[in-house]
Amino acid sequence: MSNAPHKPLSVDGNTKLFPVLGDPIGQVKSPAGISSEFSAKGQNALCIPWHVKPADFDAVMQGLKATQNCAGYIVTVPYKLRVLRHVNKPSPRVQRIGAVNIVRREGDNWVGDMLDGVGCTNALRNNLGFDFKGKRALVIGTGGAGSAIIDSIAEAGAASITIFDLDTAKANEVATRFGKAHTGCKITVGAAVAEGHDLIVNATPCGMGEGDGMPAPFGRLDPKVVVADVITKPEITPLLAHAKACGCKISTGIQMYQAQAAMIADYLIPGKSDV
Amino acid sequence: MSNAPHKPLSVDGNTKLFPVLGDPIGQVKSPAGISSEFSAKGQNALCIPWHVKPADFDAVMQGLKATQNCAGYIVTVPYKLRVLRHVNKPSPRVQRIGAVNIVRREGDNWVGDMLDGVGCTNALRNNLGFDFKGKRALVIGTGGAGSAIIDSIAEAGAASITIFDLDTAKANEVATRFGKAHTGCKITVGAAVAEGHDLIVNATPCGMGEGDGMPAPFGRLDPKVVVADVITKPEITPLLAHAKACGCKISTGIQMYQAQAAMIADYLIPGKSDV
Repeated sequence: MSNAPHKPLSVDGNTKLFPVLGDPIGQVKSPAGISSEFSAKGQNALCIPWHVKPADFDAVMQGLKATQNCAGYIVTVPYKLRVLRHVNKPSPRVQRIGAVNIVRREGDNWVGDMLDGVGCTNALRNNLGFDFKGKRALVIGTGGAGSAIIDSIAEAGAASITIFDLDTAKANEVATRFGKAHTGCKITVGAAVAEGHDLIVNATPCGMGEGDGMPAPFGRLDPKVVVADVITKPEITPLLAHAKACGCKISTGIQMYQAQAAMIADYLIPGKSDV
Repeated sequence: MSNAPHKPLSVDGNTKLFPVLGDPIGQVKSPAGISSEFSAKGQNALCIPWHVKPADFDAVMQGLKATQNCAGYIVTVPYKLRVLRHVNKPSPRVQRIGAVNIVRREGDNWVGDMLDGVGCTNALRNNLGFDFKGKRALVIGTGGAGSAIIDSIAEAGAASITIFDLDTAKANEVATRFGKAHTGCKITVGAAVAEGHDLIVNATPCGMGEGDGMPAPFGRLDPKVVVADVITKPEITPLLAHAKACGCKISTGIQMYQAQAAMIADYLIPGKSDV
Protein backbone atom coordinates (compact mmCIF):
# COMPACT_ATOMS: atom_id res chain seq x y z
CA MET A 1 0.00 0.00 0.00
CA SER A 2 1.43 3.39 -0.89
CA ASN A 3 2.24 5.79 1.90
CA ALA A 4 0.67 8.69 -0.01
CA PRO A 5 -1.86 10.60 2.10
CA HIS A 6 -5.42 9.45 1.40
CA LYS A 7 -6.84 11.58 -1.37
CA PRO A 8 -10.61 11.91 -1.29
CA LEU A 9 -12.32 9.46 -3.64
CA SER A 10 -14.50 10.72 -6.47
CA VAL A 11 -16.80 9.24 -9.06
CA ASP A 12 -18.25 10.56 -12.33
CA GLY A 13 -19.57 9.26 -15.63
CA ASN A 14 -16.10 8.19 -16.79
CA THR A 15 -15.03 6.22 -13.71
CA LYS A 16 -13.64 2.73 -14.41
CA LEU A 17 -14.98 0.05 -12.08
CA PHE A 18 -13.28 -2.96 -10.53
CA PRO A 19 -15.71 -5.12 -8.52
CA VAL A 20 -14.47 -7.46 -5.78
CA LEU A 21 -16.41 -10.73 -6.15
CA GLY A 22 -17.01 -12.71 -2.96
CA ASP A 23 -19.47 -14.29 -0.55
CA PRO A 24 -19.58 -12.95 2.13
CA ILE A 25 -18.32 -9.50 1.15
CA GLY A 26 -18.51 -7.15 4.16
CA GLN A 27 -15.04 -8.07 5.40
CA VAL A 28 -13.13 -7.25 2.19
CA LYS A 29 -10.48 -4.56 2.41
CA SER A 30 -9.85 -4.01 -1.30
CA PRO A 31 -12.65 -1.49 -1.97
CA ALA A 32 -11.10 1.03 0.43
CA GLY A 33 -7.46 -0.01 -0.09
CA ILE A 34 -7.35 -0.36 -3.87
CA SER A 35 -9.59 2.67 -4.46
CA SER A 36 -7.07 4.71 -2.40
CA GLU A 37 -4.24 3.33 -4.51
CA PHE A 38 -6.04 4.37 -7.70
CA SER A 39 -6.73 7.80 -6.27
CA ALA A 40 -3.09 8.25 -5.21
CA LYS A 41 -2.05 7.37 -8.78
CA GLY A 42 -4.48 9.92 -10.24
CA GLN A 43 -6.66 7.23 -11.84
CA ASN A 44 -10.41 7.79 -12.30
CA ALA A 45 -11.26 4.33 -11.01
CA LEU A 46 -12.96 2.68 -8.04
CA CYS A 47 -12.79 -0.76 -6.51
CA ILE A 48 -16.28 -1.72 -5.30
CA PRO A 49 -17.70 -4.66 -3.29
CA TRP A 50 -19.72 -7.12 -5.37
CA HIS A 51 -21.64 -9.67 -3.31
CA VAL A 52 -22.56 -12.76 -5.32
CA LYS A 53 -24.17 -16.00 -4.13
CA PRO A 54 -22.71 -19.20 -5.64
CA ALA A 55 -25.86 -20.02 -7.64
CA ASP A 56 -25.63 -16.62 -9.38
CA PHE A 57 -21.90 -16.52 -10.07
CA ASP A 58 -21.92 -17.24 -13.79
CA ALA A 59 -24.88 -14.93 -14.54
CA VAL A 60 -23.13 -12.12 -12.67
CA MET A 61 -19.90 -12.74 -14.58
CA GLN A 62 -21.80 -12.52 -17.90
CA GLY A 63 -23.23 -9.17 -16.80
CA LEU A 64 -19.86 -7.79 -15.71
CA LYS A 65 -18.16 -8.86 -18.93
CA ALA A 66 -20.88 -7.00 -20.87
CA THR A 67 -20.44 -3.82 -18.80
CA GLN A 68 -18.21 -1.54 -20.88
CA ASN A 69 -16.63 0.37 -17.98
CA CYS A 70 -15.96 -2.71 -15.87
CA ALA A 71 -12.24 -2.86 -16.62
CA GLY A 72 -11.35 -5.83 -14.43
CA TYR A 73 -12.13 -7.40 -11.09
CA ILE A 74 -10.72 -8.92 -7.92
CA VAL A 75 -11.78 -12.37 -6.75
CA THR A 76 -11.98 -13.57 -3.18
CA VAL A 77 -13.44 -16.55 -1.30
CA PRO A 78 -15.10 -18.75 -2.59
CA TYR A 79 -14.53 -17.91 -6.26
CA LYS A 80 -10.74 -18.02 -6.82
CA LEU A 81 -10.96 -21.42 -8.55
CA ARG A 82 -14.37 -21.09 -10.13
CA VAL A 83 -13.49 -17.85 -11.91
CA LEU A 84 -10.85 -19.65 -14.01
CA ARG A 85 -13.38 -20.46 -16.74
CA HIS A 86 -13.95 -16.71 -17.27
CA VAL A 87 -10.25 -15.91 -17.74
CA ASN A 88 -9.05 -16.70 -21.26
CA LYS A 89 -5.50 -15.42 -20.73
CA PRO A 90 -4.22 -16.82 -17.42
CA SER A 91 -0.63 -16.10 -16.40
CA PRO A 92 1.88 -18.99 -16.13
CA ARG A 93 1.54 -18.63 -12.34
CA VAL A 94 -2.24 -19.06 -12.57
CA GLN A 95 -1.74 -22.16 -14.69
CA ARG A 96 0.61 -23.63 -12.05
CA ILE A 97 -1.61 -22.69 -9.09
CA GLY A 98 -5.06 -23.27 -10.62
CA ALA A 99 -6.54 -20.15 -9.00
CA VAL A 100 -7.02 -16.47 -9.87
CA ASN A 101 -7.43 -13.45 -7.64
CA ILE A 102 -7.11 -10.59 -10.11
CA VAL A 103 -8.32 -10.04 -13.66
CA ARG A 104 -8.14 -7.15 -16.11
CA ARG A 105 -9.80 -6.51 -19.46
CA GLU A 106 -7.49 -6.20 -22.47
CA GLY A 107 -9.68 -5.60 -25.51
CA ASP A 108 -11.80 -8.74 -25.84
CA ASN A 109 -9.55 -10.72 -23.50
CA TRP A 110 -9.61 -11.26 -19.74
CA VAL A 111 -6.09 -11.56 -18.38
CA GLY A 112 -5.71 -13.12 -14.93
CA ASP A 113 -3.05 -13.50 -12.27
CA MET A 114 -2.79 -14.75 -8.67
CA LEU A 115 -0.97 -12.42 -6.29
CA ASP A 116 -1.73 -14.01 -2.89
CA GLY A 117 1.61 -15.79 -2.80
CA VAL A 118 3.64 -12.77 -3.89
CA GLY A 119 1.83 -10.76 -1.22
CA CYS A 120 3.04 -13.22 1.41
CA THR A 121 6.66 -13.38 0.23
CA ASN A 122 6.82 -9.59 -0.32
CA ALA A 123 5.52 -8.92 3.19
CA LEU A 124 8.17 -11.24 4.68
CA ARG A 125 10.92 -9.74 2.57
CA ASN A 126 9.94 -6.08 2.89
CA ASN A 127 8.80 -5.97 6.52
CA LEU A 128 11.14 -8.50 8.15
CA GLY A 129 14.04 -8.58 5.71
CA PHE A 130 13.47 -12.32 5.29
CA ASP A 131 15.78 -13.78 2.62
CA PHE A 132 14.28 -16.96 1.13
CA LYS A 133 17.51 -18.23 -0.43
CA GLY A 134 18.32 -21.66 1.01
CA LYS A 135 15.55 -21.51 3.62
CA ARG A 136 13.31 -24.41 4.72
CA ALA A 137 9.60 -23.57 4.87
CA LEU A 138 6.54 -25.33 6.29
CA VAL A 139 3.23 -24.42 4.62
CA ILE A 140 0.01 -25.63 6.25
CA GLY A 141 -2.97 -25.75 3.88
CA THR A 142 -3.11 -26.32 0.12
CA GLY A 143 -6.16 -24.29 -0.96
CA GLY A 144 -5.89 -21.31 -3.35
CA ALA A 145 -3.83 -19.19 -0.94
CA GLY A 146 -1.68 -22.11 0.24
CA SER A 147 -0.90 -23.18 -3.33
CA ALA A 148 -0.02 -19.61 -4.31
CA ILE A 149 2.27 -19.26 -1.29
CA ILE A 150 4.03 -22.57 -2.01
CA ASP A 151 4.60 -21.36 -5.59
CA SER A 152 5.99 -17.98 -4.48
CA ILE A 153 8.25 -19.41 -1.77
CA ALA A 154 9.71 -21.85 -4.30
CA GLU A 155 10.17 -19.03 -6.84
CA ALA A 156 11.88 -16.89 -4.18
CA GLY A 157 14.66 -19.47 -3.88
CA ALA A 158 13.81 -21.55 -0.81
CA ALA A 159 15.76 -24.81 -0.43
CA SER A 160 12.75 -26.84 0.63
CA ILE A 161 9.04 -26.68 1.40
CA THR A 162 7.23 -29.12 3.64
CA ILE A 163 3.52 -29.26 2.86
CA PHE A 164 0.93 -30.30 5.42
CA ASP A 165 -2.77 -30.68 4.77
CA LEU A 166 -5.37 -32.78 6.61
CA ASP A 167 -6.29 -34.01 3.12
CA THR A 168 -3.16 -36.08 2.43
CA ALA A 169 -4.11 -36.92 -1.15
CA LYS A 170 -4.43 -33.19 -1.89
CA ALA A 171 -1.08 -32.50 -0.20
CA ASN A 172 0.56 -35.20 -2.35
CA GLU A 173 -0.95 -33.83 -5.55
CA VAL A 174 0.20 -30.29 -4.74
CA ALA A 175 3.71 -31.43 -3.77
CA THR A 176 4.05 -33.36 -7.02
CA ARG A 177 2.70 -30.50 -9.15
CA PHE A 178 4.93 -27.78 -7.67
CA GLY A 179 7.89 -30.15 -7.44
CA LYS A 180 7.75 -30.50 -11.23
CA ALA A 181 7.38 -26.73 -11.72
CA HIS A 182 10.19 -25.75 -9.33
CA THR A 183 12.96 -28.28 -9.68
CA GLY A 184 15.40 -26.21 -7.60
CA CYS A 185 13.24 -26.54 -4.48
CA LYS A 186 12.63 -29.81 -2.63
CA ILE A 187 8.88 -29.99 -2.10
CA THR A 188 7.57 -32.83 0.06
CA VAL A 189 4.60 -33.77 2.20
CA GLY A 190 5.41 -33.96 5.90
CA ALA A 191 4.30 -33.39 9.45
CA ALA A 192 3.30 -29.94 10.76
CA VAL A 193 6.22 -29.61 13.15
CA ALA A 194 8.51 -26.65 13.66
CA GLU A 195 11.74 -28.63 13.82
CA GLY A 196 13.84 -28.34 10.67
CA HIS A 197 12.04 -25.19 9.39
CA ASP A 198 13.03 -21.52 9.23
CA LEU A 199 9.56 -20.32 8.23
CA ILE A 200 6.04 -21.51 9.14
CA VAL A 201 3.04 -20.25 7.14
CA ASN A 202 -0.56 -20.97 8.06
CA ALA A 203 -2.73 -20.94 4.91
CA THR A 204 -5.80 -22.59 6.48
CA PRO A 205 -8.84 -20.81 7.98
CA CYS A 206 -7.91 -22.24 11.41
CA GLY A 207 -7.64 -19.20 13.72
CA MET A 208 -10.55 -17.23 12.21
CA GLY A 209 -13.25 -18.92 14.28
CA GLU A 210 -14.15 -18.12 17.88
CA GLY A 211 -12.31 -20.68 20.04
CA ASP A 212 -10.00 -21.87 17.25
CA GLY A 213 -6.57 -22.94 18.38
CA MET A 214 -3.41 -23.24 16.28
CA PRO A 215 -3.56 -25.18 12.99
CA ALA A 216 -1.08 -27.68 14.51
CA PRO A 217 0.00 -28.31 18.13
CA PHE A 218 3.32 -26.46 18.10
CA GLY A 219 5.34 -26.53 21.31
CA ARG A 220 7.81 -23.81 22.23
CA LEU A 221 9.24 -22.33 19.02
CA ASP A 222 12.86 -21.43 18.41
CA PRO A 223 12.88 -17.59 18.27
CA LYS A 224 14.78 -17.81 15.00
CA VAL A 225 11.69 -19.30 13.28
CA VAL A 226 9.58 -16.73 11.39
CA VAL A 227 5.80 -17.32 11.49
CA ALA A 228 3.22 -15.99 9.02
CA ASP A 229 -0.55 -16.31 8.84
CA VAL A 230 -2.93 -15.51 5.95
CA ILE A 231 -5.86 -14.69 8.24
CA THR A 232 -6.80 -11.00 8.40
CA LYS A 233 -9.44 -11.19 11.13
CA PRO A 234 -8.31 -11.50 13.86
CA GLU A 235 -4.98 -10.06 12.76
CA ILE A 236 -3.20 -11.80 15.66
CA THR A 237 -4.33 -15.42 15.43
CA PRO A 238 -3.61 -18.01 18.16
CA LEU A 239 -0.62 -19.17 16.07
CA LEU A 240 0.80 -15.65 15.81
CA ALA A 241 0.16 -14.96 19.51
CA HIS A 242 2.06 -18.14 20.38
CA ALA A 243 4.90 -17.20 18.02
CA LYS A 244 5.18 -13.73 19.54
CA ALA A 245 5.24 -15.23 23.04
CA CYS A 246 8.14 -17.43 21.90
CA GLY A 247 10.05 -14.37 20.64
CA CYS A 248 9.58 -15.18 16.92
CA LYS A 249 9.17 -12.54 14.21
CA ILE A 250 5.67 -12.64 12.71
CA SER A 251 3.92 -11.54 9.52
CA THR A 252 0.15 -11.04 9.60
CA GLY A 253 -2.60 -11.49 7.01
CA ILE A 254 -3.13 -7.74 7.01
CA GLN A 255 0.53 -7.18 6.14
CA MET A 256 0.23 -9.78 3.37
CA TYR A 257 -2.81 -7.92 2.03
CA GLN A 258 -1.02 -4.57 2.27
CA ALA A 259 1.98 -5.94 0.39
CA GLN A 260 -0.43 -6.87 -2.42
CA ALA A 261 -2.39 -3.61 -2.64
CA ALA A 262 -0.01 -1.53 -4.75
CA MET A 263 0.70 -4.57 -6.96
CA ILE A 264 -3.02 -5.10 -7.48
CA ALA A 265 -3.61 -1.46 -8.42
CA ASP A 266 -0.67 -1.56 -10.85
CA TYR A 267 -1.93 -4.81 -12.36
CA LEU A 268 -5.51 -3.60 -12.81
CA ILE A 269 -4.45 -0.33 -14.49
CA PRO A 270 -0.98 -0.93 -15.87
CA GLY A 271 1.36 2.00 -16.32
CA LYS A 272 2.78 2.68 -19.75
CA SER A 273 5.89 0.66 -18.95
CA ASP A 274 4.12 -2.70 -18.70
CA VAL A 275 1.28 -2.39 -21.19
CA MET B 1 -29.42 18.81 -4.56
CA SER B 2 -28.64 19.47 -0.92
CA ASN B 3 -26.54 22.47 -0.06
CA ALA B 4 -24.51 20.48 2.46
CA PRO B 5 -20.76 20.85 1.91
CA HIS B 6 -19.39 17.94 -0.12
CA LYS B 7 -18.27 15.22 2.25
CA PRO B 8 -15.50 13.02 0.90
CA LEU B 9 -16.82 9.79 -0.60
CA SER B 10 -15.75 6.45 0.80
CA VAL B 11 -16.19 2.80 -0.09
CA ASP B 12 -15.76 -0.43 1.89
CA GLY B 13 -17.03 -4.00 1.89
CA ASN B 14 -20.50 -2.93 3.06
CA THR B 15 -21.14 -0.17 0.50
CA LYS B 16 -24.49 -0.37 -1.29
CA LEU B 17 -24.27 0.22 -5.04
CA PHE B 18 -26.62 2.03 -7.40
CA PRO B 19 -25.47 1.80 -11.04
CA VAL B 20 -26.61 4.35 -13.64
CA LEU B 21 -27.44 2.41 -16.81
CA GLY B 22 -26.94 4.22 -20.08
CA ASP B 23 -25.26 4.37 -23.50
CA PRO B 24 -23.25 6.57 -23.75
CA ILE B 25 -22.40 7.08 -20.09
CA GLY B 26 -19.57 9.64 -19.77
CA GLN B 27 -21.96 12.60 -19.62
CA VAL B 28 -24.08 11.40 -16.67
CA LYS B 29 -24.13 13.59 -13.59
CA SER B 30 -25.74 11.15 -11.15
CA PRO B 31 -22.60 9.29 -10.04
CA ALA B 32 -21.11 12.48 -8.57
CA GLY B 33 -24.40 14.14 -7.62
CA ILE B 34 -26.26 11.22 -6.06
CA SER B 35 -23.14 9.83 -4.35
CA SER B 36 -22.74 13.26 -2.70
CA GLU B 37 -26.37 13.17 -1.59
CA PHE B 38 -25.83 9.72 -0.03
CA SER B 39 -22.68 10.91 1.69
CA ALA B 40 -24.41 14.04 3.04
CA LYS B 41 -27.12 11.77 4.47
CA GLY B 42 -24.54 9.53 6.14
CA GLN B 43 -25.37 6.56 3.88
CA ASN B 44 -22.69 3.99 2.98
CA ALA B 45 -23.72 3.98 -0.68
CA LEU B 46 -22.35 4.99 -4.07
CA CYS B 47 -23.94 5.78 -7.39
CA ILE B 48 -21.67 4.44 -10.17
CA PRO B 49 -21.67 4.72 -13.98
CA TRP B 50 -22.68 1.49 -15.76
CA HIS B 51 -22.09 1.56 -19.51
CA VAL B 52 -24.20 -1.01 -21.33
CA LYS B 53 -24.61 -1.55 -25.08
CA PRO B 54 -28.16 -2.30 -26.24
CA ALA B 55 -27.37 -5.91 -27.25
CA ASP B 56 -26.18 -6.62 -23.69
CA PHE B 57 -28.91 -4.86 -21.75
CA ASP B 58 -30.89 -7.87 -20.55
CA ALA B 59 -27.79 -9.92 -19.63
CA VAL B 60 -26.47 -6.99 -17.60
CA MET B 61 -29.83 -6.60 -15.85
CA GLN B 62 -29.78 -10.29 -14.89
CA GLY B 63 -26.31 -9.85 -13.40
CA LEU B 64 -27.28 -6.73 -11.43
CA LYS B 65 -30.43 -8.35 -10.06
CA ALA B 66 -28.25 -11.26 -8.82
CA THR B 67 -25.75 -8.90 -7.14
CA GLN B 68 -26.72 -8.82 -3.45
CA ASN B 69 -25.41 -5.33 -2.68
CA CYS B 70 -26.87 -3.72 -5.81
CA ALA B 71 -29.78 -2.05 -4.02
CA GLY B 72 -31.30 -0.25 -6.99
CA TYR B 73 -30.34 1.66 -10.11
CA ILE B 74 -30.92 4.74 -12.19
CA VAL B 75 -31.83 4.51 -15.86
CA THR B 76 -30.96 6.99 -18.56
CA VAL B 77 -31.02 7.14 -22.37
CA PRO B 78 -31.77 4.78 -24.18
CA TYR B 79 -33.17 2.40 -21.55
CA LYS B 80 -36.01 4.26 -19.79
CA LEU B 81 -38.67 2.30 -21.71
CA ARG B 82 -36.82 -0.97 -22.12
CA VAL B 83 -36.17 -1.35 -18.40
CA LEU B 84 -39.92 -1.64 -17.69
CA ARG B 85 -39.83 -5.42 -18.09
CA HIS B 86 -37.38 -5.65 -15.17
CA VAL B 87 -39.58 -3.64 -12.78
CA ASN B 88 -42.31 -5.77 -11.23
CA LYS B 89 -43.71 -3.01 -9.01
CA PRO B 90 -44.05 0.15 -11.13
CA SER B 91 -45.60 3.23 -9.53
CA PRO B 92 -48.96 4.54 -10.83
CA ARG B 93 -46.96 7.36 -12.47
CA VAL B 94 -44.77 4.81 -14.30
CA GLN B 95 -47.89 3.01 -15.49
CA ARG B 96 -49.28 6.29 -16.88
CA ILE B 97 -46.00 7.39 -18.49
CA GLY B 98 -44.66 4.02 -19.68
CA ALA B 99 -41.08 4.82 -18.65
CA VAL B 100 -38.86 4.38 -15.59
CA ASN B 101 -35.78 6.31 -14.47
CA ILE B 102 -35.28 5.00 -10.94
CA VAL B 103 -35.59 1.57 -9.35
CA ARG B 104 -34.95 0.19 -5.87
CA ARG B 105 -34.83 -3.34 -4.49
CA GLU B 106 -37.42 -4.23 -1.86
CA GLY B 107 -36.83 -7.84 -0.86
CA ASP B 108 -37.47 -9.83 -4.04
CA ASN B 109 -39.23 -6.93 -5.75
CA TRP B 110 -37.97 -4.13 -7.96
CA VAL B 111 -39.97 -0.96 -7.38
CA GLY B 112 -39.75 1.73 -10.04
CA ASP B 113 -40.68 5.37 -10.49
CA MET B 114 -40.15 8.14 -13.04
CA LEU B 115 -38.96 11.44 -11.60
CA ASP B 116 -38.03 13.41 -14.74
CA GLY B 117 -41.35 15.25 -14.74
CA VAL B 118 -41.29 16.07 -11.03
CA GLY B 119 -37.74 17.34 -11.48
CA CYS B 120 -39.00 19.78 -14.12
CA THR B 121 -42.02 21.02 -12.15
CA ASN B 122 -40.01 21.23 -8.90
CA ALA B 123 -37.29 23.29 -10.56
CA LEU B 124 -39.88 25.73 -11.93
CA ARG B 125 -41.68 25.96 -8.59
CA ASN B 126 -38.63 26.15 -6.33
CA ASN B 127 -36.30 28.30 -8.44
CA LEU B 128 -38.78 30.62 -10.16
CA GLY B 129 -41.79 30.45 -7.83
CA PHE B 130 -43.87 29.26 -10.78
CA ASP B 131 -47.42 28.36 -9.68
CA PHE B 132 -48.97 25.84 -12.07
CA LYS B 133 -52.57 26.39 -10.94
CA GLY B 134 -54.64 27.54 -13.91
CA LYS B 135 -51.64 27.92 -16.23
CA ARG B 136 -51.46 27.01 -19.92
CA ALA B 137 -48.39 24.99 -20.93
CA LEU B 138 -46.86 24.02 -24.26
CA VAL B 139 -44.74 20.83 -24.20
CA ILE B 140 -42.64 19.99 -27.26
CA GLY B 141 -41.69 16.31 -27.52
CA THR B 142 -43.47 13.20 -26.26
CA GLY B 143 -40.62 10.79 -25.46
CA GLY B 144 -39.93 9.50 -21.94
CA ALA B 145 -39.02 12.93 -20.54
CA GLY B 146 -41.79 14.75 -22.44
CA SER B 147 -44.44 12.28 -21.26
CA ALA B 148 -43.23 12.53 -17.67
CA ILE B 149 -43.32 16.34 -17.85
CA ILE B 150 -46.82 16.37 -19.31
CA ASP B 151 -47.93 14.09 -16.46
CA SER B 152 -46.33 16.28 -13.77
CA ILE B 153 -47.62 19.57 -15.19
CA ALA B 154 -51.13 18.12 -15.28
CA GLU B 155 -50.77 16.82 -11.70
CA ALA B 156 -49.50 20.23 -10.57
CA GLY B 157 -52.84 21.79 -11.51
CA ALA B 158 -52.29 23.38 -14.91
CA ALA B 159 -55.47 24.41 -16.77
CA SER B 160 -54.27 23.13 -20.13
CA ILE B 161 -51.37 21.53 -21.94
CA THR B 162 -50.73 21.82 -25.65
CA ILE B 163 -48.64 18.95 -26.99
CA PHE B 164 -46.50 19.24 -30.09
CA ASP B 165 -44.51 16.43 -31.66
CA LEU B 166 -43.31 16.00 -35.24
CA ASP B 167 -44.86 12.52 -34.95
CA THR B 168 -48.52 13.58 -34.88
CA ALA B 169 -49.85 10.08 -34.27
CA LYS B 170 -47.64 9.85 -31.18
CA ALA B 171 -48.80 13.28 -30.02
CA ASN B 172 -52.44 12.23 -30.41
CA GLU B 173 -51.88 8.98 -28.48
CA VAL B 174 -50.14 10.82 -25.63
CA ALA B 175 -52.80 13.55 -25.48
CA THR B 176 -55.57 10.93 -25.30
CA ARG B 177 -53.76 8.86 -22.66
CA PHE B 178 -52.97 11.76 -20.31
CA GLY B 179 -56.33 13.39 -20.99
CA LYS B 180 -58.00 10.30 -19.53
CA ALA B 181 -55.62 10.20 -16.54
CA HIS B 182 -55.92 13.92 -15.72
CA THR B 183 -59.52 14.96 -16.32
CA GLY B 184 -59.00 18.37 -14.66
CA CYS B 185 -56.48 19.47 -17.30
CA LYS B 186 -57.34 20.11 -20.94
CA ILE B 187 -54.71 18.20 -22.93
CA THR B 188 -54.70 18.69 -26.70
CA VAL B 189 -52.40 18.43 -29.70
CA GLY B 190 -51.56 21.80 -31.21
CA ALA B 191 -49.00 23.99 -32.93
CA ALA B 192 -45.69 24.91 -31.31
CA VAL B 193 -46.47 28.60 -30.91
CA ALA B 194 -45.97 30.80 -27.87
CA GLU B 195 -49.29 32.61 -28.11
CA GLY B 196 -51.80 31.45 -25.51
CA HIS B 197 -49.17 29.79 -23.26
CA ASP B 198 -47.66 30.78 -19.91
CA LEU B 199 -44.99 28.07 -20.02
CA ILE B 200 -42.99 26.49 -22.86
CA VAL B 201 -41.02 23.29 -22.24
CA ASN B 202 -38.65 21.72 -24.75
CA ALA B 203 -38.44 17.95 -24.17
CA THR B 204 -36.77 17.09 -27.50
CA PRO B 205 -33.02 16.68 -28.13
CA CYS B 206 -33.11 19.73 -30.42
CA GLY B 207 -30.49 22.11 -29.03
CA MET B 208 -27.93 19.47 -28.06
CA GLY B 209 -26.31 19.22 -31.47
CA GLU B 210 -23.75 21.61 -32.91
CA GLY B 211 -25.67 24.05 -35.11
CA ASP B 212 -29.10 23.10 -33.77
CA GLY B 213 -31.63 25.91 -33.65
CA MET B 214 -34.78 26.13 -31.57
CA PRO B 215 -37.23 23.18 -31.60
CA ALA B 216 -39.83 25.53 -33.18
CA PRO B 217 -39.46 28.93 -34.91
CA PHE B 218 -40.57 31.18 -32.04
CA GLY B 219 -40.64 34.90 -32.72
CA ARG B 220 -40.22 37.51 -29.99
CA LEU B 221 -41.60 36.06 -26.74
CA ASP B 222 -43.72 37.90 -24.21
CA PRO B 223 -41.42 38.34 -21.17
CA LYS B 224 -44.19 36.88 -19.00
CA VAL B 225 -43.72 33.47 -20.65
CA VAL B 226 -41.51 31.07 -18.70
CA VAL B 227 -39.28 28.79 -20.82
CA ALA B 228 -37.74 25.48 -19.74
CA ASP B 229 -35.46 23.00 -21.50
CA VAL B 230 -34.55 19.40 -20.55
CA ILE B 231 -31.14 19.55 -22.25
CA THR B 232 -28.16 19.62 -19.87
CA LYS B 233 -25.39 20.14 -22.42
CA PRO B 234 -25.23 22.91 -23.43
CA GLU B 235 -27.01 24.28 -20.41
CA ILE B 236 -28.11 27.39 -22.34
CA THR B 237 -29.69 26.01 -25.51
CA PRO B 238 -30.65 28.21 -28.49
CA LEU B 239 -34.23 28.22 -27.14
CA LEU B 240 -33.11 29.38 -23.67
CA ALA B 241 -30.76 31.98 -25.15
CA HIS B 242 -33.63 33.38 -27.20
CA ALA B 243 -35.93 33.37 -24.15
CA LYS B 244 -33.36 35.22 -22.06
CA ALA B 245 -32.90 37.79 -24.83
CA CYS B 246 -36.67 38.35 -24.77
CA GLY B 247 -36.59 38.94 -21.00
CA CYS B 248 -38.28 35.64 -20.07
CA LYS B 249 -37.47 33.64 -16.96
CA ILE B 250 -35.80 30.33 -17.83
CA SER B 251 -35.25 26.93 -16.24
CA THR B 252 -32.37 24.77 -17.50
CA GLY B 253 -31.86 21.02 -17.80
CA ILE B 254 -29.17 21.22 -15.12
CA GLN B 255 -31.66 22.83 -12.73
CA MET B 256 -34.19 20.11 -13.57
CA TYR B 257 -31.55 17.49 -12.80
CA GLN B 258 -30.57 19.23 -9.55
CA ALA B 259 -34.20 19.39 -8.46
CA GLN B 260 -34.31 15.60 -8.88
CA ALA B 261 -31.09 14.71 -7.07
CA ALA B 262 -32.29 14.83 -3.46
CA MET B 263 -35.55 13.09 -4.48
CA ILE B 264 -33.57 10.35 -6.22
CA ALA B 265 -31.33 9.79 -3.19
CA ASP B 266 -34.39 9.66 -0.89
CA TYR B 267 -36.15 7.25 -3.24
CA LEU B 268 -33.19 4.90 -3.57
CA ILE B 269 -32.57 4.70 0.20
CA PRO B 270 -35.87 5.65 1.84
CA GLY B 271 -35.89 7.11 5.32
CA LYS B 272 -37.88 5.37 8.03
CA SER B 273 -40.88 7.54 7.34
CA ASP B 274 -41.60 6.21 3.86
CA VAL B 275 -40.48 2.59 4.07
